[in-house]
Amino acid sequence: MKEVVLGIDLGGTNTKFGLVDREGNIIIESSMPTDVHETIGTFQEALYKRSSVLIERANTQLVGVGIGAPNANYYKGTIEYPPNLKWKGITPFVDLFTKYYNVPMVLTNDANAAAIGEMMYGGAKGMRDFIVITLGTGLGSGIVCNGQLLYGHDGFAGELGHSLVNVFGRTCGCGRRGCLETYVSATGIKRTVYKLLADYNGESELVDTSFENLTADQITEAAKRGDKVAIAAFEYTGRILGMKLADAVVHSSPEAIFLFGGLTKADEHIFEPTKRYMEEHMLGIFKGKVKLLVSELNDRNAAVLGAAALVWKEKIH
Amino acid sequence: MKEVVLGIDLGGTNTKFGLVDREGNIIIESSMPTDVHETIGTFQEALYKRSSVLIERANTQLVGVGIGAPNANYYKGTIEYPPNLKWKGITPFVDLFTKYYNVPMVLTNDANAAAIGEMMYGGAKGMRDFIVITLGTGLGSGIVCNGQLLYGHDGFAGELGHSLVNVFGRTCGCGRRGCLETYVSATGIKRTVYKLLADYNGESELVDTSFENLTADQITEAAKRGDKVAIAAFEYTGRILGMKLADAVVHSSPEAIFLFGGLTKADEHIFEPTKRYMEEHMLGIFKGKVKLLVSELNDRNAAVLGAAALVWKEKIH
Repeated sequence: MKEVVLGIDLGGTNTKFGLVDREGNIIIESSMPTDVHETIGTFQEALYKRSSVLIERANTQLVGVGIGAPNANYYKGTIEYPPNLKWKGITPFVDLFTKYYNVPMVLTNDANAAAIGEMMYGGAKGMRDFIVITLGTGLGSGIVCNGQLLYGHDGFAGELGHSLVNVFGRTCGCGRRGCLETYVSATGIKRTVYKLLADYNGESELVDTSFENLTADQITEAAKRGDKVAIAAFEYTGRILGMKLADAVVHSSPEAIFLFGGLTKADEHIFEPTKRYMEEHMLGIFKGKVKLLVSELNDRNAAVLGAAALVWKEKIH
Repeated sequence: MKEVVLGIDLGGTNTKFGLVDREGNIIIESSMPTDVHETIGTFQEALYKRSSVLIERANTQLVGVGIGAPNANYYKGTIEYPPNLKWKGITPFVDLFTKYYNVPMVLTNDANAAAIGEMMYGGAKGMRDFIVITLGTGLGSGIVCNGQLLYGHDGFAGELGHSLVNVFGRTCGCGRRGCLETYVSATGIKRTVYKLLADYNGESELVDTSFENLTADQITEAAKRGDKVAIAAFEYTGRILGMKLADAVVHSSPEAIFLFGGLTKADEHIFEPTKRYMEEHMLGIFKGKVKLLVSELNDRNAAVLGAAALVWKEKIH
């Protein structure tokens, strides 16, 4: 039987999971709702049942489980104080899940998982120093230095979504103000559009959509049609992202920075200003040296793949 | 004969050098001017002559040379575009110095050297994840992750002095504006005092000193005597440093941050506000966890020691 790792991308709303072979092929995948489960117990039971069906159906042998989750503590296998999950406090996810599977398990945050996926199966193959920025509901990041994922003392390294842009700025889910992800994320650009609708007095096709209903995809489509506010929103996003990437560069001196996620569908609308402002704010010795690239896992489920890749990389042979 | 490494702390004005044994004792040390040498050739010749005298006098055997220098490229052994040295462009320091010594050599920036010194002989013994911030004319930093000094792709990682506080802020020697070291360094606090002398209309004992003559030590002494402007200058410095340290923490999740250098002589005047603002701006999962410590190498020549320590650590056995 083919050996596979179960990769799990645990999100606030949905959880995606799939069986990944050593070469990085997702053999079969599925998803289930996260937020209907009030307790970790019923969630893990449901996840076990559904993943077992996949394992059997694909006629495979499970050799490991990799989980990408928000606020994941790699060292302890715990999820700690996640703002977007119903399980509050500290959840010992890995310990509890050993009730179901007796194989090596690794838990890390979804952006770290994406970085490992990029290194093993994507555009970072052969690179030893790079950063992956995931642009979803929030902004996640995985930092690789000297070929190793940066975990730090607490296992929480690489939380660039909560680096500070403006301490008097936008309210953040973390309880502070002005974090990078309040500007640069699917949610962040929506907030920017609303700010700009005010500045431009509503000269935009986005004027008919409520705050609740507006999506990053709509903003992307509007920008591609030449909508002034949508284009300005990407410029604004790229300015802040570019500036903070220049700061990230002085920390870890990466060879490349990969952008992953929905916002990258805007292509040059997001890449051009981000690159321009990154170079404008870059310290001289780094100018023109750091590649800004689109993730090569963009069309695939990077967190499922990456969580599984981490197990293949660290736990098996 | 006792084996020693020649540790060199190459600064813009002076160069300090000493012979360091494996246990981190500086057996003998000396210094010479840097800025009288218009070319690297005459500088290295003078350095060789003076260090050879030390080696002979101490009756030791040289087994390595470690150099801490500004804008040092660890991988290439070069000093690249240093704003404060007379040798412009790229100087292949290590290659040229092999003319004099045929032993393993390592070149890195002085803050990286200080971080290695802290790890081998100072307060970071046994730590795997920490940051050393050196507060001198500028602000240097050495980042250690997973027990390894972070060099990054280009060998220039850890340039936190050039992370951005305010892109419209103070002019920096690097040609940009608002870099951290324009606020947080011996020079930075002097600029802050002058700003505050304006704000407070000169209600300070520092009002009699010219910009050119004012030193960080004078500001420290004034603060200890209760001078309003000097105390406010440390508060201002601590606010900006604390905020940027919170940002550094989300990058690499250190166990501790060490402050090194002249400004730390101000004791609680600098540590208390830095700690307070660092905690205020800290992401929840890191709050109360990251130690802010004074370097245990403060009274010793950390860059000489650290440059030598790097050779002992990486090049010998």
